[in-house]
Amino acid sequence: MARVRPLSGFPELTPRDRVVEAHVLSTLREVFALHGYGEIETRAVEPIDRLAGDSEASKEIYVLQRLNAEGDAEAKLGLHFDLTVPFARYVEENQGALQFPFRRWQIQKVWRGERPQEGRFREFYQADIDIVARETLPEHLESEVAIVMARALGRLPIPSVTMHVNNRALVEGFYRGVGIDDVAGALRSVDKLDKIGPDGVRAELAEQGVSETAADAALELARISSPDASFAAAVEDLWETTTKVEDPSDAQEQLARGIASLTALVESVNAAVPGTAVADLRIARGLDYYTGSVYETFMDGHEGFGSICSGGRYDSLVAGGGFPGVGMSIGVSRLVALLLSAGLVSATRGVPSAVLVAVTDEETRAASQGIADRLRDRGIPCEVAPSAAKFGKQIQHADKRGIPFVWFPAPDGDGQVKDIRTGDQVDADADTWEPPAADRWPGVSAADPA
Amino acid sequence: MARVRPLSGFPELTPRDRVVEAHVLSTLREVFALHGYGEIETRAVEPIDRLAGDSEASKEIYVLQRLNAEGDAEAKLGLHFDLTVPFARYVEENQGALQFPFRRWQIQKVWRGERPQEGRFREFYQADIDIVARETLPEHLESEVAIVMARALGRLPIPSVTMHVNNRALVEGFYRGVGIDDVAGALRSVDKLDKIGPDGVRAELAEQGVSETAADAALELARISSPDASFAAAVEDLWETTTKVEDPSDAQEQLARGIASLTALVESVNAAVPGTAVADLRIARGLDYYTGSVYETFMDGHEGFGSICSGGRYDSLVAGGGFPGVGMSIGVSRLVALLLSAGLVSATRGVPSAVLVAVTDEETRAASQGIADRLRDRGIPCEVAPSAAKFGKQIQHADKRGIPFVWFPAPDGDGQVKDIRTGDQVDADADTWEPPAADRWPGVSAADPA
Repeated sequence: MARVRPLSGFPELTPRDRVVEAHVLSTLREVFALHGYGEIETRAVEPIDRLAGDSEASKEIYVLQRLNAEGDAEAKLGLHFDLTVPFARYVEENQGALQFPFRRWQIQKVWRGERPQEGRFREFYQADIDIVARETLPEHLESEVAIVMARALGRLPIPSVTMHVNNRALVEGFYRGVGIDDVAGALRSVDKLDKIGPDGVRAELAEQGVSETAADAALELARISSPDASFAAAVEDLWETTTKVEDPSDAQEQLARGIASLTALVESVNAAVPGTAVADLRIARGLDYYTGSVYETFMDGHEGFGSICSGGRYDSLVAGGGFPGVGMSIGVSRLVALLLSAGLVSATRGVPSAVLVAVTDEETRAASQGIADRLRDRGIPCEVAPSAAKFGKQIQHADKRGIPFVWFPAPDGDGQVKDIRTGDQVDADADTWEPPAADRWPGVSAADPA
Repeated sequence: MARVRPLSGFPELTPRDRVVEAHVLSTLREVFALHGYGEIETRAVEPIDRLAGDSEASKEIYVLQRLNAEGDAEAKLGLHFDLTVPFARYVEENQGALQFPFRRWQIQKVWRGERPQEGRFREFYQADIDIVARETLPEHLESEVAIVMARALGRLPIPSVTMHVNNRALVEGFYRGVGIDDVAGALRSVDKLDKIGPDGVRAELAEQGVSETAADAALELARISSPDASFAAAVEDLWETTTKVEDPSDAQEQLARGIASLTALVESVNAAVPGTAVADLRIARGLDYYTGSVYETFMDGHEGFGSICSGGRYDSLVAGGGFPGVGMSIGVSRLVALLLSAGLVSATRGVPSAVLVAVTDEETRAASQGIADRLRDRGIPCEVAPSAAKFGKQIQHADKRGIPFVWFPAPDGDGQVKDIRTGDQVDADADTWEPPAADRWPGVSAADPA
């Protein structure tokens, strides 16, 4: 038998920290559902050939095999490493039964077989929303998913967030207009701006055959950002002053479409959730496969943590084509781990009970249980003391668990309830007594920024 | 790329059926929490040597391997096949941080690599509660878990249930008293009573060296059952009239303890949830490893489905000894699948939205969104029509999704809301209008027993 120890990359929480994670998950669920997103849950496994379609991801796939399988049995199933692959398969499989546009949320664990020494999570929660259409996806839905996510994040006990948004048509139109033909390749280089700096990007673009002027223009474009529609004028100014290809009219049309789309996105997100969206033309992650809006979301003051919620619009959810959609994803476990380790949030207690009903002696345990049941009937979580120890010990029992109230039954009535934090003790009736709303269930609060 | 198809043993639900499963899960969570049980969630994987400790289960273990692992890399991790193995490991690992007695609930998927042709679930939800103590576990907690589960099941949209309970000390005392030394072996045979009949059990007991009189006595004991304490007199009568070993005083003492314990269990469960518990002395499943109470729960009228909620008291949660506890487990996915396939329950709709806010034309979409947001602010789930189609088509859009209300904004105010089931249409204010409580969220109802 192996010694009991944590497994690297498979984090587990204490009951009290799980209260924080459960709070985050239920807040997300509620906001998603209020916006009409329905839940699906997919199996944890997919056929390996479906998972391994993306060669980048295939390195991380965990394959499954029955322990006592015949020696030559071929492994055919693997654990999903995101929720997009299973969602695409689910939509394809159930298309006849679904109503489109189909809004869904999905919160499940995903698994990645990272090398342990990298210290990354190998099992974690993702929370995704997507809307997919059967034929055309109206552009306003690109604003909708961003607004839903901004509202969901706004309800979490985390610092404020800024959503950096960009648009593939805008960048592609611009790039094509200045003579960059391998748009996806250029985007992958520009995406490394933070890591390798402008000179590094220039060098990579040069290798791709991009002219110096075009590379400069692409880097200039990446410098433009605004928390409102004013980025548009800056892009248009840059376009005017930049050397372009011989006939840039197609590219210019694409650029104009992208500008209009990004303007609508920034304005509608900021109208719904003021101060959230910033048009940021250096955002390039995923723009090689997203086809419209693209989103990255950073916690203010914790930008170094990276994007906590990303996504974009795609033309085709399934490999065979069709089902255009837009979606965003939150890496919940990673976010919760940051919140906990940075001391940004904490739960008020790790047990659900708001009340410990004391037991005077074992003969009257039934009376204590009766009081507990009357409290539970009114939705007040409670537990009965495990033994008829001295009251001081029973109070200690509650205190160790963070249970705020101890109820002392009396032979001639319901007795008294004590707030063990203040020592206040009052007569109480189990059919009417209410704890303060904040004490009823374990709460989660942002830590004092003291 | 494999053709998209369901995988045998890995069930997936439609959004509407998932509403039923989610309702079952959230009901269980709430009842568990009201009784002071805290949540833990463990990683999906355990070291294989820990999982494979039980040779019976080892056949079903799914082992994990990274897809691109070096050829000779040894698989060391497997998916958990129940929630007891990870719970035991979690308690052992976190014992310094936990407060005992420790009440926990845990609802997670588990995986079993069953042979596909058996048509059994290979991925399914289990919902467990356990209480573990550090040293001694008071007997009243054996009633508590049964009561919590009886209340949880009573809140589900399922037929009434009967919990059949037995006690290891009672059976062991009786068996030893009549001269059955291999108590665990005899229990495994008696457990097959339904399958192989009394003569089959007699034959097996004979092979184990059990005398004919003793076998008859064991079978007589298994015939005793009562929905109250009256089983005790029947057991005592049988004991009186049965041939016993030379000095049965130890055995008799154990029998008496078992009778007292089972009496307390039946009486306290039925006091809390009338008509639920039946002392049933043929219940032998798990009695070879449980050490006190043992529970099996059947849905009335669906007994053939087998136990939906089982468990018992054990002396030691962890292999090294220590941590006595008591727990019960519900096989949720299997139960939900039965409810759905038997048409016993259904969800009122598959989307969360209670209201579809219509869009008159794309120019006034923002006004429609504003109405939707005011409804959401008051906790009313809604969605805005994807396009400004004719109102008839927008009503159809709602109807197909089961959305009961369509809101028609007006240029000079909030407009009107229509109940599309009745056709009633009234002026409404988005800051005050309320749907009927039953329409606000998708509901789950037991089907009419028509």
